[in-house]
Amino acid sequence: MKTLLLSLKDVEQALSMEEVISAVEQGYISYNEGKVQQPDIVSMEMPENNGETDIKSCYNKLNESISVKIASGFYDNGKNNELPTMIGTILLFDGRNGAPLCIMDGSLITGIRTGAAGAISSKLLARKDSKVVAVFGAGGQARMQIYALCQVMNIQEIRVYSEYTEELPKYKEYVERNTKVKVIICDTPEQAMKDADIAISTTPSKKYLVDKSLVKPGTHIVAVGADMAGKNEWDPEIFKGAKIVNDSIAQCISRGETRNAIISGIIKESDIYAEIGELLLGNKPLRESDDEITIFDTTGMGIQDNVTAAQVYEIAKKKGLGKYFEFI
Amino acid sequence: MKTLLLSLKDVEQALSMEEVISAVEQGYISYNEGKVQQPDIVSMEMPENNGETDIKSCYNKLNESISVKIASGFYDNGKNNELPTMIGTILLFDGRNGAPLCIMDGSLITGIRTGAAGAISSKLLARKDSKVVAVFGAGGQARMQIYALCQVMNIQEIRVYSEYTEELPKYKEYVERNTKVKVIICDTPEQAMKDADIAISTTPSKKYLVDKSLVKPGTHIVAVGADMAGKNEWDPEIFKGAKIVNDSIAQCISRGETRNAIISGIIKESDIYAEIGELLLGNKPLRESDDEITIFDTTGMGIQDNVTAAQVYEIAKKKGLGKYFEFI
Repeated sequence: MKTLLLSLKDVEQALSMEEVISAVEQGYISYNEGKVQQPDIVSMEMPENNGETDIKSCYNKLNESISVKIASGFYDNGKNNELPTMIGTILLFDGRNGAPLCIMDGSLITGIRTGAAGAISSKLLARKDSKVVAVFGAGGQARMQIYALCQVMNIQEIRVYSEYTEELPKYKEYVERNTKVKVIICDTPEQAMKDADIAISTTPSKKYLVDKSLVKPGTHIVAVGADMAGKNEWDPEIFKGAKIVNDSIAQCISRGETRNAIISGIIKESDIYAEIGELLLGNKPLRESDDEITIFDTTGMGIQDNVTAAQVYEIAKKKGLGKYFEFI
Repeated sequence: MKTLLLSLKDVEQALSMEEVISAVEQGYISYNEGKVQQPDIVSMEMPENNGETDIKSCYNKLNESISVKIASGFYDNGKNNELPTMIGTILLFDGRNGAPLCIMDGSLITGIRTGAAGAISSKLLARKDSKVVAVFGAGGQARMQIYALCQVMNIQEIRVYSEYTEELPKYKEYVERNTKVKVIICDTPEQAMKDADIAISTTPSKKYLVDKSLVKPGTHIVAVGADMAGKNEWDPEIFKGAKIVNDSIAQCISRGETRNAIISGIIKESDIYAEIGELLLGNKPLRESDDEITIFDTTGMGIQDNVTAAQVYEIAKKKGLGKYFEFI
């Protein structure tokens, strides 16, 4: 049988943010309808090479496919060789018979499906009149979050803060070109949070950047950066009294920003309001007042990779992208 | 960068049992020297399609590579379509930078590295004058075990028992042709165990086939079939007083034949003598008398896939096998 192979460029041609947003919404729904098997994330660490590898796997009964993503971060790659820091490979198997359907580059998919997740949460939880967005970090995911958000809301100003100040002009240029929204470079988290209706964090920080005093009532927070124990972008005190939504509670309490609030004793697991799929299913009210602080904590789920990869596979077949190889 | 793709046929041309045996020995040693990270096995089940998928991953510091094997068993494949029941895909990444080096069919590798494991255990633990081998099951792994064993010991008679009696004449023909050793087809486990010096089980049985009364003193048992909770080939009473060796104690007590002896209260975890890598390292005595019953329980380790796949990759490059594809 033939397995389709898709390069980063092929994947790029098969992806649209609009379609990924609806695929990820459907994925979250399937997860909370119990149609998804999502084993624990597997992690391996290569400290001698400043690297780590994670495996996220998922069986989705709805599209009858099994996905496995092997994603690595080797943080010295930029210095030592020409490989990217983040490398991902996704395999898609037929859930009816195990056939290897498609193997594709997974780095762009990770970026886009994560951007989609943030945008979905803002659509559900941010105030409808949100206009100003604070962004922490100026890398690829900080671009992707804004690109996705601008698909679903009428954003008018982006306020970006990053400790890697050399990235900021590039970020401003890229985002203004791609979204037509004005970007203001900020020198402090305080400046970035000023007037922010939505605040998105995408850094690898291990010590929080944003103090509770900087978060005004009514803000929607999208916490993306903290995806393993030890990472921290937000003052855990912000969680007290906030409406806390997780992509997966199991993952967020063990490796997300939510974990920090729990281990510091500020909230209990029972204070988490919902998983995002429950909100999409209409099982619980969304934002209930203009003063409420809402938090979406996302650590990234196998189901997001699954639905996005399955979509890429279908579109690639229609467009005639990629090459085939017979493994068996 | 270019990733090498190897089909089942390419892998076949790059493998030799002799080399795999020494690679797996080295892998076991590395594991017990603490040079291997081997996360828990990930399992997904597709009961509606009579299928299951396992993921075995491993980072091996010695060869600086990361391997991920996705192996499926879809037990209706023979009836419903032309796909094999067991499908495997192995990815090999550079442990220094995460680069995807090679993606190869993994079904033959699984078979061969498991055969190698059994042979290594017999070389270490069976009586040196062992001549008669009982085999339970007549499928691919029952062939592979004998093929491997005949590389390391002077075997003179194989006694095979299988509940799938239609497979037996094919098994006899295949093994006699490939090993030049006489195969006797047996109607009962008792007949198979008669005079057996080594006894190897490779079935998917969920109820034990071999009663304690059939195991004579001095036998070496290779328990291959039980690789998940619920599978059982050997009377757990056989474990009492035997010298029990596991590939990985963590795996064997949670999913191997050893688990059955522990949950039935016949042995405790502390009764397990060693992991096989400890024996290869010379850290503990091997067989200490001709009367001892020795048991090697193997559930299959990521390190076996890692070293075998790395070997296949090196040989394939030298021989110019496979095709290249640029994912990134």
